[in-house]
Amino acid sequence: MKPKVFIYDTTLRDGTQGDGISLTVASKLRLAQKMDSFGIDFIEGGWPGSNPRDMAFFEQAANLELKHAKISAFGSTRRANVRAEDDAQLKLLLEAKTPCVTIFGKTWMLHVEKVIKTTPEENLKMIRESVEFLKKNGRIVIYDAEHFFDGYKDSREYALKTLQAAIDGGADYLCLCDTNGGTLVGEFKNIVSDVCAFAKDTPVAVHCHNDSGVGVAVSIAGVEAGARMVQGTLNGYGERNGNANICTIIPNLILKLGYDLSCAQNLSKLRDLSLFADEMANARSDSRQPYVGASSFAHKGGVHADAVNKIKSSYEHIKPELVGNKTRVLVSDMSGRALVMMKARELGMDIDAKDPKIKAFLDELKQLEFNGYGYEAADASFKLLLAKFLNKAKPAFSVHNYRVMVERNDFKEIIRSEATVKLEVGGAIEHMVAEAHGPVGALDMALRKALVRHFPQIMKIELIDFKVRVLDSGLGANAVVRVQAEFKDGDKIWGTVGASDNVIEAAWEALRDAFEYKLMNI
Amino acid sequence: MKPKVFIYDTTLRDGTQGDGISLTVASKLRLAQKMDSFGIDFIEGGWPGSNPRDMAFFEQAANLELKHAKISAFGSTRRANVRAEDDAQLKLLLEAKTPCVTIFGKTWMLHVEKVIKTTPEENLKMIRESVEFLKKNGRIVIYDAEHFFDGYKDSREYALKTLQAAIDGGADYLCLCDTNGGTLVGEFKNIVSDVCAFAKDTPVAVHCHNDSGVGVAVSIAGVEAGARMVQGTLNGYGERNGNANICTIIPNLILKLGYDLSCAQNLSKLRDLSLFADEMANARSDSRQPYVGASSFAHKGGVHADAVNKIKSSYEHIKPELVGNKTRVLVSDMSGRALVMMKARELGMDIDAKDPKIKAFLDELKQLEFNGYGYEAADASFKLLLAKFLNKAKPAFSVHNYRVMVERNDFKEIIRSEATVKLEVGGAIEHMVAEAHGPVGALDMALRKALVRHFPQIMKIELIDFKVRVLDSGLGANAVVRVQAEFKDGDKIWGTVGASDNVIEAAWEALRDAFEYKLMNI
Repeated sequence: MKPKVFIYDTTLRDGTQGDGISLTVASKLRLAQKMDSFGIDFIEGGWPGSNPRDMAFFEQAANLELKHAKISAFGSTRRANVRAEDDAQLKLLLEAKTPCVTIFGKTWMLHVEKVIKTTPEENLKMIRESVEFLKKNGRIVIYDAEHFFDGYKDSREYALKTLQAAIDGGADYLCLCDTNGGTLVGEFKNIVSDVCAFAKDTPVAVHCHNDSGVGVAVSIAGVEAGARMVQGTLNGYGERNGNANICTIIPNLILKLGYDLSCAQNLSKLRDLSLFADEMANARSDSRQPYVGASSFAHKGGVHADAVNKIKSSYEHIKPELVGNKTRVLVSDMSGRALVMMKARELGMDIDAKDPKIKAFLDELKQLEFNGYGYEAADASFKLLLAKFLNKAKPAFSVHNYRVMVERNDFKEIIRSEATVKLEVGGAIEHMVAEAHGPVGALDMALRKALVRHFPQIMKIELIDFKVRVLDSGLGANAVVRVQAEFKDGDKIWGTVGASDNVIEAAWEALRDAFEYKLMNI
Repeated sequence: MKPKVFIYDTTLRDGTQGDGISLTVASKLRLAQKMDSFGIDFIEGGWPGSNPRDMAFFEQAANLELKHAKISAFGSTRRANVRAEDDAQLKLLLEAKTPCVTIFGKTWMLHVEKVIKTTPEENLKMIRESVEFLKKNGRIVIYDAEHFFDGYKDSREYALKTLQAAIDGGADYLCLCDTNGGTLVGEFKNIVSDVCAFAKDTPVAVHCHNDSGVGVAVSIAGVEAGARMVQGTLNGYGERNGNANICTIIPNLILKLGYDLSCAQNLSKLRDLSLFADEMANARSDSRQPYVGASSFAHKGGVHADAVNKIKSSYEHIKPELVGNKTRVLVSDMSGRALVMMKARELGMDIDAKDPKIKAFLDELKQLEFNGYGYEAADASFKLLLAKFLNKAKPAFSVHNYRVMVERNDFKEIIRSEATVKLEVGGAIEHMVAEAHGPVGALDMALRKALVRHFPQIMKIELIDFKVRVLDSGLGANAVVRVQAEFKDGDKIWGTVGASDNVIEAAWEALRDAFEYKLMNI
């Protein structure tokens, strides 16, 4: 077994700098708990004083019962020419009442002179005294050397002096930050090796960004050069191109390189952690994300899908289950008969490979995909389509018509949606009306009212997820819209899809499929 | 100047294996031309015989007038136990009439035995004779050693024998493929070094995938170890986690490492090429993509945005213009006064930094963002908001009410949308109705009808882009929906945003803002 490597997560602080990422206090707390139970070692919660949200987080985080992780508060060294004990920001860091504090200081002379406008000597004192002050107050102290690689390349001597100041202050870790993400693997590794030799007993950490597309690779190079802590974010959230993605670094360190990580025993929960973070951050999950993405073990090309069937390991670099993922066969317009058969089996449908209808089904599928439908996340719609095509199922109801009205009143700013639905079901005509704030809610309710007398069980169905994607959005108001919806009944979850150049119609199709699927009970 | 490195693009073949990526023949041809004018050296067009689309591409590609790039046809070595000249697939490769042919063969004994089911010796003959046959027919031949790294680790001796077979056949390049993307930088570099020493005068290429999140880093490590050709795809399209992304590799090799690339002089068109590929593939542009993404040089945190202002290079690893990108300041709920001032200046608005209304504006902005509005891509809505807040502009019209009806007729499958809009404009009440297929189109038309008598210029406005995003999609039908729209008038383009738990209302807000913005003429 190789040495222990600690994972320091900064999703809650640096991650929220990302374009489109924002976390409520409640989400931050839930995510911290989730990371703790996964086995993350350090969790940076925010920058006390930078905004009210971060203050509120630390107040409430003090009451979190964590099993393993240490919460850290982030801030900077003291201002120039004040005593550490008089520095308002260092005080706030203590008030955050966290076991760990991470402070950043300047490495690069350019910043010493132009940004914080002080002397090289005062900068060294700021680092040493700030670390010392926090140590005296009983904190684990991580010193983040901002712009370390730029500073080192500008002056190795001064860069190492700043680290020496942190060592003299008693820092527990020296973190080398590649703040603008510009360094490539070779150079990065050489610099970290040099620093590790210099720092001797003080462990070194690395903090990388993905601006050169190598955030993961440089983090790993850092560990191979002697660093014992990696800072990064879940799903690589972060400013610009994001921070180094710990969801990729963790399995690489454990599975490929054999390092000892606290979270090793929970590795199979990695995908779950990644999806949870997306949910908290309200971010779209990147299906192409290594290890944990929905496409990571998805096979489309005929040759590959065929070979995967023959030798599972051929096109999969690890067993997907190790990170909580799974092999997926994509239904797409490149699919052949074998792929559809495989998908049908995956769905538990027993069909005959020689059925001539399969060919006709493939043609139909191609046409539907051309029209904007996508079945990769809509197993229920796909199954329904296949079952209808093979006459394996009879629809439980047929739709005569529907109408939706959305109205905004004179100046009153009140918006109201009303939907009517007319169905034929169990030999009767059901014509119902319902209202809601939005048109989809109104349609959903009217459809249930029309069905409930015949199928009371449908009231238990919950609509749990609803996504809208404009395809070929350049067409403006005429663009085709794809709606994907997810429904739940007890512990069963199913997905449906609708597509139309009318967003209401697309939503209606996804709703209708969901109820039809439930009632067909295939 | 370091040595010449050739870029071999496989977007049109391996790229189309990606989840959600598909290219029509016309798109493939346009993309090939675009890559040619950018300076890509080799363009892999497809696999003749694998599907009708690829055949059609090669037929038409023969008539393309390319300035620099060489088109390559992709296929495999001959089948076992047939003569190369009798192999149907090798014949198809010649019929594609391309200057270059790339064939893959087996390196890994596991595949020799289990997938193609032949002997180690026959596999070597298949490689040598296939290459020989294509060379005899005047092609540049690239030999793709599939699963090279797995094969090498299994048996270095046999892996090198397969390469020797390709050398003996006369191959122009030996391409080492990390087919399942599992190899990390250190090991990758050692193996490529070993092969380069072995291959002597035959140049080596690398073909990487991103399954371990290091596709770019290993490609670069390959070049540093002696490889002189890199295979990859635009935007990293490709199966599973994608191929190595040449949009990241190219600027790294040119700007960071000083290699000589044919496309160096066109580097400032890189972002344009990347966006064009997304358009052709109908893929959503990844704003977080290194170098070319919309967020690559976007700054959000107060500290950073402030420092970027002071020293441009501090948080930007390269000058964005080098790759055709630009610095962007994000408006978000983390913004302070300085950020809003900067944004206002960027928008050409002259406001006083000391205006006490700025504080109130920031509070309002925070509330709106909390409610689901996002202004990062909606400069027009932001400007409108700011101008109204500072009483710099008076709305050109006020809305009394609107109503939209979407109706699906009895069984006839005809969907119709009708919208009415009532406005007060220029002292008059305008009450108009219009219809269209979708509700947004109907609202758009009714709004124009109500305004046109007063402002004929509004008819020239085009709605060019329309995006819908469900925020917190877990709330089902009650989720807040954000609509972002883009409009055009001549060469002016502006973006607006709307947010509501009613998708129609969100779309209405984005439409209304667009016309208001145009008429305010700020």
